[in-house]
Amino acid sequence: MKTQYYTASSLDGFIADANHSLEWLFQLGEVENTSYPQFISEVGAIAMGSSTYEWLLKHEIYANEAEPKAWMYAQPVWVFSSRELRKVEGANIQFVRGDVRPIHAAMRSAAGEQNIWIVGGGDLAGQFWDAGLLDELIITIASVTLGSGAPLLPRAITKPALRLISCATFGEVFAELRYEVVKAPH
Amino acid sequence: MKTQYYTASSLDGFIADANHSLEWLFQLGEVENTSYPQFISEVGAIAMGSSTYEWLLKHEIYANEAEPKAWMYAQPVWVFSSRELRKVEGANIQFVRGDVRPIHAAMRSAAGEQNIWIVGGGDLAGQFWDAGLLDELIITIASVTLGSGAPLLPRAITKPALRLISCATFGEVFAELRYEVVKAPH
Repeated sequence: MKTQYYTASSLDGFIADANHSLEWLFQLGEVENTSYPQFISEVGAIAMGSSTYEWLLKHEIYANEAEPKAWMYAQPVWVFSSRELRKVEGANIQFVRGDVRPIHAAMRSAAGEQNIWIVGGGDLAGQFWDAGLLDELIITIASVTLGSGAPLLPRAITKPALRLISCATFGEVFAELRYEVVKAPH
Repeated sequence: MKTQYYTASSLDGFIADANHSLEWLFQLGEVENTSYPQFISEVGAIAMGSSTYEWLLKHEIYANEAEPKAWMYAQPVWVFSSRELRKVEGANIQFVRGDVRPIHAAMRSAAGEQNIWIVGGGDLAGQFWDAGLLDELIITIASVTLGSGAPLLPRAITKPALRLISCATFGEVFAELRYEVVKAPH
């Protein structure tokens, strides 16, 4: 049971552009042509921050207010937010705040032997890293630069460094880098 | 004869930390254990910005003022700077400023069939890209994040996207991504 930060990023370290758009990513092709289907099949619990959640509401669930779409995750989702956020009827979502550690314990119970997915943003992933709870980074590097935007992981992780496990290419558009987080006092 | 931006970067898109240090990179091992020896053997001309040049003076050439080291490049080097910079005796260095295009023409003459290396920083590489003169990006991603620092390539390169050519791993510390720049009106 691993806690994984799985996300797409520009080559220059941004997970969304300065306008919170992911168009630069979607233009590169369908998610079915990546490792995502295999990845999500092994996930038992999901965590995301408020910006990520609100992006999903705006661009997916309530993109057409007259015809809301179904929530896309079967797994239980914990949304970290200090604000009251719009809900999605029938979706298995809990709104939480504060220290990630007790939430992570609840997520572990729910996930069982399956993995925990930290969707983003970068600072939420950073909070799991701060607490020594992040096990892996799986970063799909898109063949673009953005120059500015939401940072991939606003932390200095140097000593110890991450451990590169593999790099896999998907056509000319994605390079997926997998890292193990080396646990040590920091 | 290709114009190549060859550099190391953190996973989150920085080529130096906020203190202009490269210690996060040097701790990961010797440059001989990367593609650098093969790369430099094919380079006929070099361009760098003032910060990059001044870093070399401070950390390499004049690290010990009593015993200056020899300049490390046999190829002619063009240093882009609007300021007067300290010189290195006997080194083949020209100080230039302004539009990269006439400089690039001079570099092509000097390089002949060999390649042109844009060492950095990110904005100088960006200026070559702006002018349609950048052919390849060869980015060695180190197994670290920095959170802040000097940006890899402060440009939005999305339409057209870059073309990923390959990814190669060097132990657990480096993933080298090679991209072709797709030329199109932008």
